[in-house]
Amino acid sequence: MSATEVRVDQSGSAKMKAVNYQGPFKVKVEQVPKPAIEHPDDVVVKVTTAAICGSDLHMYEGRTGAEPGITFGHENMGVVEEIGAGVTLLKKGDRVVMPFNVADGRCRNCEEGKTAFCTGVNPGFAGGAYGYVAMGPYRGGQAQYVRVPYADFNALKLPPGKEHESDFILLADIFPTGWHGLTLSGFKPGESVAVWGAGPVGLMAAYSAVLRGASRVYVVDRVPERLAAAEKIGCTPIDFSKGDAVDQILKANGDMVDRTVDAVGYQAVDTGGKKEQPNIVLEDMIRATRPVGGMGIPGLYIPSDPKAPDESSAKGMISLSFGKLFEKGLSLATGQCNVKQYNRYLRDLIIAGKARPSFVISHEIDIEDAETAYDKFDKRIDGYTKVLIHPNGPL
Amino acid sequence: MSATEVRVDQSGSAKMKAVNYQGPFKVKVEQVPKPAIEHPDDVVVKVTTAAICGSDLHMYEGRTGAEPGITFGHENMGVVEEIGAGVTLLKKGDRVVMPFNVADGRCRNCEEGKTAFCTGVNPGFAGGAYGYVAMGPYRGGQAQYVRVPYADFNALKLPPGKEHESDFILLADIFPTGWHGLTLSGFKPGESVAVWGAGPVGLMAAYSAVLRGASRVYVVDRVPERLAAAEKIGCTPIDFSKGDAVDQILKANGDMVDRTVDAVGYQAVDTGGKKEQPNIVLEDMIRATRPVGGMGIPGLYIPSDPKAPDESSAKGMISLSFGKLFEKGLSLATGQCNVKQYNRYLRDLIIAGKARPSFVISHEIDIEDAETAYDKFDKRIDGYTKVLIHPNGPL
Amino acid sequence: MSATEVRVDQSGSAKMKAVNYQGPFKVKVEQVPKPAIEHPDDVVVKVTTAAICGSDLHMYEGRTGAEPGITFGHENMGVVEEIGAGVTLLKKGDRVVMPFNVADGRCRNCEEGKTAFCTGVNPGFAGGAYGYVAMGPYRGGQAQYVRVPYADFNALKLPPGKEHESDFILLADIFPTGWHGLTLSGFKPGESVAVWGAGPVGLMAAYSAVLRGASRVYVVDRVPERLAAAEKIGCTPIDFSKGDAVDQILKANGDMVDRTVDAVGYQAVDTGGKKEQPNIVLEDMIRATRPVGGMGIPGLYIPSDPKAPDESSAKGMISLSFGKLFEKGLSLATGQCNVKQYNRYLRDLIIAGKARPSFVISHEIDIEDAETAYDKFDKRIDGYTKVLIHPNGPL
Amino acid sequence: MSATEVRVDQSGSAKMKAVNYQGPFKVKVEQVPKPAIEHPDDVVVKVTTAAICGSDLHMYEGRTGAEPGITFGHENMGVVEEIGAGVTLLKKGDRVVMPFNVADGRCRNCEEGKTAFCTGVNPGFAGGAYGYVAMGPYRGGQAQYVRVPYADFNALKLPPGKEHESDFILLADIFPTGWHGLTLSGFKPGESVAVWGAGPVGLMAAYSAVLRGASRVYVVDRVPERLAAAEKIGCTPIDFSKGDAVDQILKANGDMVDRTVDAVGYQAVDTGGKKEQPNIVLEDMIRATRPVGGMGIPGLYIPSDPKAPDESSAKGMISLSFGKLFEKGLSLATGQCNVKQYNRYLRDLIIAGKARPSFVISHEIDIEDAETAYDKFDKRIDGYTKVLIHPNGPL
Repeated sequence: MSATEVRVDQSGSAKMKAVNYQGPFKVKVEQVPKPAIEHPDDVVVKVTTAAICGSDLHMYEGRTGAEPGITFGHENMGVVEEIGAGVTLLKKGDRVVMPFNVADGRCRNCEEGKTAFCTGVNPGFAGGAYGYVAMGPYRGGQAQYVRVPYADFNALKLPPGKEHESDFILLADIFPTGWHGLTLSGFKPGESVAVWGAGPVGLMAAYSAVLRGASRVYVVDRVPERLAAAEKIGCTPIDFSKGDAVDQILKANGDMVDRTVDAVGYQAVDTGGKKEQPNIVLEDMIRATRPVGGMGIPGLYIPSDPKAPDESSAKGMISLSFGKLFEKGLSLATGQCNVKQYNRYLRDLIIAGKARPSFVISHEIDIEDAETAYDKFDKRIDGYTKVLIHPNGPL
Repeated sequence: MSATEVRVDQSGSAKMKAVNYQGPFKVKVEQVPKPAIEHPDDVVVKVTTAAICGSDLHMYEGRTGAEPGITFGHENMGVVEEIGAGVTLLKKGDRVVMPFNVADGRCRNCEEGKTAFCTGVNPGFAGGAYGYVAMGPYRGGQAQYVRVPYADFNALKLPPGKEHESDFILLADIFPTGWHGLTLSGFKPGESVAVWGAGPVGLMAAYSAVLRGASRVYVVDRVPERLAAAEKIGCTPIDFSKGDAVDQILKANGDMVDRTVDAVGYQAVDTGGKKEQPNIVLEDMIRATRPVGGMGIPGLYIPSDPKAPDESSAKGMISLSFGKLFEKGLSLATGQCNVKQYNRYLRDLIIAGKARPSFVISHEIDIEDAETAYDKFDKRIDGYTKVLIHPNGPL
Repeated sequence: MSATEVRVDQSGSAKMKAVNYQGPFKVKVEQVPKPAIEHPDDVVVKVTTAAICGSDLHMYEGRTGAEPGITFGHENMGVVEEIGAGVTLLKKGDRVVMPFNVADGRCRNCEEGKTAFCTGVNPGFAGGAYGYVAMGPYRGGQAQYVRVPYADFNALKLPPGKEHESDFILLADIFPTGWHGLTLSGFKPGESVAVWGAGPVGLMAAYSAVLRGASRVYVVDRVPERLAAAEKIGCTPIDFSKGDAVDQILKANGDMVDRTVDAVGYQAVDTGGKKEQPNIVLEDMIRATRPVGGMGIPGLYIPSDPKAPDESSAKGMISLSFGKLFEKGLSLATGQCNVKQYNRYLRDLIIAGKARPSFVISHEIDIEDAETAYDKFDKRIDGYTKVLIHPNGPL
Repeated sequence: MSATEVRVDQSGSAKMKAVNYQGPFKVKVEQVPKPAIEHPDDVVVKVTTAAICGSDLHMYEGRTGAEPGITFGHENMGVVEEIGAGVTLLKKGDRVVMPFNVADGRCRNCEEGKTAFCTGVNPGFAGGAYGYVAMGPYRGGQAQYVRVPYADFNALKLPPGKEHESDFILLADIFPTGWHGLTLSGFKPGESVAVWGAGPVGLMAAYSAVLRGASRVYVVDRVPERLAAAEKIGCTPIDFSKGDAVDQILKANGDMVDRTVDAVGYQAVDTGGKKEQPNIVLEDMIRATRPVGGMGIPGLYIPSDPKAPDESSAKGMISLSFGKLFEKGLSLATGQCNVKQYNRYLRDLIIAGKARPSFVISHEIDIEDAETAYDKFDKRIDGYTKVLIHPNGPL
């Protein structure tokens, strides 16, 4: 059986391969039922590429309530294979990329563009996603096929063929999420920006600042490879293991910066890089942002974290220099990215040759290699930073 | 000597009466030199009305670094009496009201409308004000005269005469500050709003919501008179001494509200109304604001508060449910009001008879009665909530 | 047969009454097939109220390419009677009002909130509507039933019962359209506004300005009853038959106004009120708007008008004082209202008792009286200004 | 006498060289009094560079009411030489560039950032400029010295020295004006843009689109050198002498564009390039802009043009396909650039090496060569497109 076929079992129902969670630090490629149309507005997409996201590691590490058996994968693209009766814009054979958000396109939040906070797809909660604990019953796309609900709304059409595959896959999450982080900061062209975190999202935020006409972009991290990547796209690297990050920024910029972006989130670590100190990035940002400036916070903070370094953080509480923040008249904005607000425009930048976000990708693998990839990515070894899976074999 | 005259002493230099801070819980009406033109863009205004602000009480109570001898008063209006050589728009006899902010109109922040963060009037700091500790060398207007720097920029012209005096005086601070709080929340007409605090600023925020087309406005306080005032302008009072404020709002509104405003600040108290709990209002707001909603924070938070209830608060640190805030995708904005962004429009609403903010005023007094007024206002007795001083006698 | 029943003909297919166009100046209530679910996302609504719109008269007067047999009616509300398999948010029995726009909720324009310019419902054109020539194959709602495509997206839920029926029906078009006109002008609270036209849309624009905190609102018309209605809601009436409208506004306001709204459109008439002069309102607005102000243009202009007063207007060309417009740095915005951007909020204002737009309604009729109503409305006699049809009998 | 000295005449008053208008097609370098401080907020700047602007040619060609003797020059930079008593931010020796707008920083329009519409510097009109007919009594800067009113507000500080002189001089007008044109169109990053006119302003608009993350930028002109310049900065040239411009754009883009910018103005010419047809660019834009898109119009339109091709244009009237514009729901914004809204940010882009607008400059000359330069620039010969004058000699 070639990698691109779907095995039909004895009972006649189609099966496919999927990357399934088994328990802390363990995933496995298993055979699961191939998805089918469940609602008239569904399509089934044959996955050409699915990416592993840093947030998959939260589940992988057992730091969430994810149950064994869940299929991972919220960054998915592929080709439309089956179409529900209600679908009007897509047709079989269309190449598409899906936002990590599952959204219904018909609730109040969706109609106002806040698709990350859809109230229709995950009862009792504002927001849904593929393959993620507590984000609704949507199987992930690290599999040969994925069912896409409300498909006309959720699938973004791409030019046919195989071109730009490794750029387009980043439209599912990290390119829009980085772009969103910059937008949340209130950024306007010509301003100066500092981004905390040079992981994939941080690099995308910094890259967005470059694309949108920032005058200066500083990127704070401690990993030399990441800082080198930031420098390569025209940013000034700030190594916080070499001294206070804010002092370095103030010195390099001659003043505070206009906008700051937190692409780190609640697992921020102290200068030594070992101990978690959940408020350290936000505190840095309050210091580094000039009066009347803005802070964009796409980095994840969660309401409950049993493995947090202290009791307060475990309840999602963060202690902030709020008096200083007020004195400076700062504003801050948070939250998951409404991918649909941006992905169409970022796609067009890729097609026009103006954006090449794929520079963050480190590995492309077959689905059979997923177990190894998760292990190495989690350990941050062998340069694993952003991994693409091709579940139906190489393109 | 009538109240409207200025005494000239032996040495020939003019003197005037001013409300001077003496030390904790003590002000006194003293004779001080009448101000003169110091810069070509100055004018001297003969004060017809100056209001006492709740924030004057921070100094009065000795809870700041204010030195004895400072003249209070940052809410000032009157008639132009002397004009510097550089003044081009004002002329002698013009009736004017000044923003509490002193701003130069020529720095980057001023040119972008952020006049509360002027970098030109108070070296080393972004923002200046009349009669306030650490806000620059500007004598307050609870006096017979006040020098207005950069007067063309800082003085807003009013119709001549005495009409609407008690409405116009509120253009100096609390009406724009309440309006600003609503703006900071991201409010749009038709939305629902909850305001914490029914003091003068909170009532002005609620009144602004009514004027700007809110569908529902909830006002949280525990003082019956304040809650009654809120109800009178069309809001729903929420008495937090009668039960959890957020539960009451959720029940009355049938859902979370779109926008919340903190008109309380760092001296927030717990349900019992006695113990300071600096994060209680912000925590309520995080719970009460719907996902993707916004929080406006005009209420004061300060970077250093030696008399705070705990060590962390003393450094201006506030502990917030940041995980919850992120999960809901909330944004928040803070800071002193840039009065000039609004005062012209609020003036026009007053002139047109559409706004009558003076309903918050409790007392109008002669300058000689300032000592008593401060005492009673600070003790919240005899209904003192918002006091107007007429330093040159009744209108 | 009572008015609320649907007749089933010999052949077994259900029929219903509908107001059908017959040709210039002629409509007739006819039996037509009752609509059925055609797509999984459809619902069928039993119409409790449908309004006649001034723009229906364009067709009625034969001034469009409308073909005989078309059922009129793009302002519709009622109760959900049948539900397609793909509908997830609505259920049978829900009381709903539909925007006049038909929109698919899944094209680029819809996802950006521009539902008046949906590209999915009317091939080759941006925008669809019920019962309107060239706006797609959607039968109008001046009938006992109406099919609502993409119903979860297009139908706004209302509180059950019969309350506020005559306010809610205005959410289909004229209340949001007036509100939109004000938004297009760039209006901010506290500003002054002048509205041309005191027909239903103009009155709604003026009413919106009042609700949203305008300082001054001027309304220009020549019909005494309309001017009286404007005055009743707190606006200043300007009778252009009594003198130049702009001169009157400048005199009353003491200056130009901040914002202007054109609620008249291409059939504007000269001072005498008889001769069409398509540019007269826009020219007035250019004169009356202060430098850097804005012009909102919800009033209809069409690309082709065979009965226009001159050859140029027939091609939709309008001659404007563009030099003056540029010198003043004015901006203008146009277009059909994206009803969904506003209707939820306006509904909440109605429920909260803050808005009562029904003051513009002149008549409520049975569907059998539609012929007479069209005739009188078109002739502007007997006070016909805004007519509600109850196609299934009185509420 | 060297070029950098100022001659003092017999009577003792200082003189300087200035480029003075003599009458149609004639300027002359004459001796005029050196400017002095006239108001406390003035400074006198020794001009290092002044640029000739295309709009100077309107006066040069006698197509305005400019009187002989006026000194041209509204694009000026240099070093502060004398300081008035009211100046607080500038000091002697500061290198500065001035917006072409003269603005007082204290009127309503200035305080709202609309410095091109200052009501304080040119009585009876909204807006002032240096060296321009009807724009107030401000002598132009094509001279050895220029008086800068309200200097703290009007002068933007630059790094000391001579670096980037030919980039910085463009901050006075054309770089911000092009940037403004893009802003007026409502542009957002990722969108597609078409710019009419590849003169200096058009190239700056196109360059701004590139810097701000446009996906596609089309530039329409007929002069091969200009089109080549557009292509060099990453834009797609559209030669309207080779066929209908809009057809070419639609073909290249596969669809209409999101935003259009008019950098031509009222002297637009037809396809042949000879005959003025004032509405041709606007008509093209209406066709080329997608529904709900926007049109930015920085190109000059004037209220009165005696030499216009027809009577209607002479009165500044332009005939537009307004029906089509409305049907597409387009918006348009116009007006002179508020240079101060942008120049600080564009300066920072230059300093950071992100922007190099000087690519548009064709010639740098001594003031003695101004007569020749005007002649050749007006005739568009010898490649004269953008000329810098160094009135005090080469840098």
